[in-house]
Amino acid sequence: MTEARLKVFGWGREGEALSTEEEEFYLGMFRRRLGVEQFESVAVPGLDRISLRAPRLTPPAALTRFCSTETYDRAAHSFGKSYPDMVRGMLGDYASAPDVVAYPRDEAEVAAVLDWAGGSQASVTPFGGGSSVVGGVEPVADGARYKAAVTLDLRHLDRVLEVDSASRAARIQAGVFGPALEAQLKPHGLTLRHFPQSFEYSTLGGWIATRSGGHFATLYTHIDDLVESLRVVTPAGTVETRRLPGSGAGPSPDRMFIGSEGTLGVITEAWMRLQDRPRFRAGASVRFGDFLAAARAVRAISQAGLYPANCRILDPNEAANTGAGDGSAAIMVLAFESADHPLEAWMARALECCTDHGGTPENAEKPDAHLQGAAGIWRNAFIRMPYAREKMVPRAIISDTFETAITWDKFEAFHAAVTRATEDAIRGATGRAGQVTCRFTHAYPDGPAPYFSFHALGRHGALLEQWQAIKKAAGDALIAAGGTITHHHAVGRDHRPWYDRQRPHLFATALRAAKQALDPRAVLNPGVLIDP
Amino acid sequence: MTEARLKVFGWGREGEALSTEEEEFYLGMFRRRLGVEQFESVAVPGLDRISLRAPRLTPPAALTRFCSTETYDRAAHSFGKSYPDMVRGMLGDYASAPDVVAYPRDEAEVAAVLDWAGGSQASVTPFGGGSSVVGGVEPVADGARYKAAVTLDLRHLDRVLEVDSASRAARIQAGVFGPALEAQLKPHGLTLRHFPQSFEYSTLGGWIATRSGGHFATLYTHIDDLVESLRVVTPAGTVETRRLPGSGAGPSPDRMFIGSEGTLGVITEAWMRLQDRPRFRAGASVRFGDFLAAARAVRAISQAGLYPANCRILDPNEAANTGAGDGSAAIMVLAFESADHPLEAWMARALECCTDHGGTPENAEKPDAHLQGAAGIWRNAFIRMPYAREKMVPRAIISDTFETAITWDKFEAFHAAVTRATEDAIRGATGRAGQVTCRFTHAYPDGPAPYFSFHALGRHGALLEQWQAIKKAAGDALIAAGGTITHHHAVGRDHRPWYDRQRPHLFATALRAAKQALDPRAVLNPGVLIDP
Repeated sequence: MTEARLKVFGWGREGEALSTEEEEFYLGMFRRRLGVEQFESVAVPGLDRISLRAPRLTPPAALTRFCSTETYDRAAHSFGKSYPDMVRGMLGDYASAPDVVAYPRDEAEVAAVLDWAGGSQASVTPFGGGSSVVGGVEPVADGARYKAAVTLDLRHLDRVLEVDSASRAARIQAGVFGPALEAQLKPHGLTLRHFPQSFEYSTLGGWIATRSGGHFATLYTHIDDLVESLRVVTPAGTVETRRLPGSGAGPSPDRMFIGSEGTLGVITEAWMRLQDRPRFRAGASVRFGDFLAAARAVRAISQAGLYPANCRILDPNEAANTGAGDGSAAIMVLAFESADHPLEAWMARALECCTDHGGTPENAEKPDAHLQGAAGIWRNAFIRMPYAREKMVPRAIISDTFETAITWDKFEAFHAAVTRATEDAIRGATGRAGQVTCRFTHAYPDGPAPYFSFHALGRHGALLEQWQAIKKAAGDALIAAGGTITHHHAVGRDHRPWYDRQRPHLFATALRAAKQALDPRAVLNPGVLIDP
Repeated sequence: MTEARLKVFGWGREGEALSTEEEEFYLGMFRRRLGVEQFESVAVPGLDRISLRAPRLTPPAALTRFCSTETYDRAAHSFGKSYPDMVRGMLGDYASAPDVVAYPRDEAEVAAVLDWAGGSQASVTPFGGGSSVVGGVEPVADGARYKAAVTLDLRHLDRVLEVDSASRAARIQAGVFGPALEAQLKPHGLTLRHFPQSFEYSTLGGWIATRSGGHFATLYTHIDDLVESLRVVTPAGTVETRRLPGSGAGPSPDRMFIGSEGTLGVITEAWMRLQDRPRFRAGASVRFGDFLAAARAVRAISQAGLYPANCRILDPNEAANTGAGDGSAAIMVLAFESADHPLEAWMARALECCTDHGGTPENAEKPDAHLQGAAGIWRNAFIRMPYAREKMVPRAIISDTFETAITWDKFEAFHAAVTRATEDAIRGATGRAGQVTCRFTHAYPDGPAPYFSFHALGRHGALLEQWQAIKKAAGDALIAAGGTITHHHAVGRDHRPWYDRQRPHLFATALRAAKQALDPRAVLNPGVLIDP
């Protein structure tokens, strides 16, 4: 099987894109929302028009077999998939391209790259699928402390090495992409069931390094809870944690590396907790008069100990924008799944929680309700959304998302403050009204994880500044109102201004000390999470 | 309300003890198990016969209001409640008594003690309820690096400060004992529902510092998952984490302090996730022909996504020793609870898992089945067990427990190897057969947390060496067979030999670096978890 190359600009592989119909749906929606007849569209330079500086570093003979300095490899590792990344791609600005891209085939090669880079005063950027939207995979070379930049792409560490069916766990290499991971587990009747929106083009190691949020809307939301043990190659040596179902032996070593975003070491493999493939399903869409009523129903379900696999809500405009609603109602996508037992009792009680708060269920009788009606439409739109951005940026449409978490006591005021601040910033930055919508991606007994989208008409030549002004207002508002700068998108470099206000000062001091012990030459991902 | 003082020797407060009936039950059991007619009993010295060295340090004037150098205070903080601790108490060996016991009333006083101790080259031992069974609260003063020892007893930080009913959370001071915590939550209709065996005489801060295991046998087993945010006073300053229902912003700061066992800072308060008080219950005792069949049923239930509050199994001898069985069958104590919904569907499916593996349910119809029959008898014995040790040690009965966790694939071989090694060590150390029993305290989809008890007839004058030989063999066996040296008893100093083999070497390096940043004079709990 020969697969097409990953795109340099945009989502997925070369040749993949929204269908004409999907593209027209999104453009039509933006025309209506933003009150525009026609978008001014610019061309995006292809690889042949991208010029990169000469590599400041070349790999030694022992490493050349798995290293590249080709333009494609360097350009395709210049940044992630954030809005400003896409703007720079559109502008042909590949100044951040790494000098060398290494594709190690085993841990020894990972360690060899770390050694070589450390000795060469080069930074090393671990790279999974490259789907970071927070500047987490952008190489750094400032010409002073870092003379050059090496990216470590783990795509060849792509195998499930061992399956333990009794414990429902598997030892899996970190560079495997989502679909290949699931394909290898399927013959065993097992699944990780971790489906972040980036699933097709992100990796297990990336999920662990960034505390990815996945399929389960309640209970096991983050990848954190699915990690049984880890192997991590650090510049100081290799760390392997013990495979245990639970432990009380000191602070969790796994939890130090989970969320470390490539700053402490390179995750090379993990024993992951798996699920049996679900055999029973119960699903429904539930309509609510407004978003806050839907949120109160989510709170009731989250605190009931029912643990639905899906319990996501869309505000009326969010529902309309994805085609899941007509803008008149908020929608809850509710689903239970189990490999073990029928789910009538669970679903019945969750629907009572909905009707208690004014909800009207639809399709609740059908076992595949999660694939039908509003829920099914939203699900498809969710999977296709990453492909939309490459169509929007060249038309100067500013369309981005940010996500957070907040306790229930503060949620309603929080939602109002963040929405207002973002709307005001759009008006200030672009001179016209845009749109801010909200959904919940995950929910906990003590609070939801709200996910905001914003859409505005920008201006070519000013897109980065306009985006930055909106992003800053939104980040400031959510930190001031008590939220977190990220629930599952990670910190990277783009979220540092708010992360630095959110995390305890002395925790950063302790984390820097831990990094100094594991990465004494500060090779790994400088500026991500902490300054070296 | 004036409460009696906590005992210097034994469990609980002065005047509290097993009833004559309970004492006779245990002694009768030990007579039969160990084949002894009469135990040789020695007297335990009272406080008037305990002599302590003169304090090597006295507090400065500013701290005297809340510090004590009285014999009672010093003796009562000399060690925890482990088997060797009790032997030393019986022998009147209080060499480890702290020079000063501080009872701070607020964080400023905690910080003042840390400053003063740092300047005086004294160690500081944070002290909650003092129920450590791993040498975690024993003061250290080696005369060289540490000239004296100060114990910081947090009992006056005993209030629930704030309740957020919407998010079901409360801000609680760390020094509060279990019953006082629950009494303060009760008027709000809320409960932490964290009931470690030490519940009466352990504290919230102690639970968090040691990753305590509580009431819930599945899902939310450890205190870790109930912590929403923390305040920690370190020698370098105070850390406060943000109150969030979920976050993906870097490695979790809370998880660095959870399980830090007083080595990084003094936990002073926490926002804790609470439960509504349960209104619905379903419970049963289930008999199995043998322990391994019961274990297979636990595995099925754990992997079914049912999340019972109780799913504990006792092997036939363990059941007999507590009066819950006659020794002919293994017993499962199974219970569901909910504040939200009836539990018939949950219980019905769990009982199917049991019958699939040869189990015979008893009392399954009664809503208070968890208080009746074998389950109820075991529950009462469980709560009273800590009071038994002070009756056993003076009779030279070696009776102790150790606990671990292991993945399902390894469990059966693990159980056999650990049982055999412990039985052999008893015979080797005491010259006669003893008894080793096993139960599960908690269970996960990927493995159980087995809890072993061992009973042997020791010899006065050799108890510490005999106990040590058995403990060493058990610890070696469980580490060699893939387990953890502790699932919820913590590491302290007693588990260091095995913890040092279990945790990754480089994790210890990173943890030491973090400690150096937060506690540069290495004041806090030297030798616990890591060497300074």
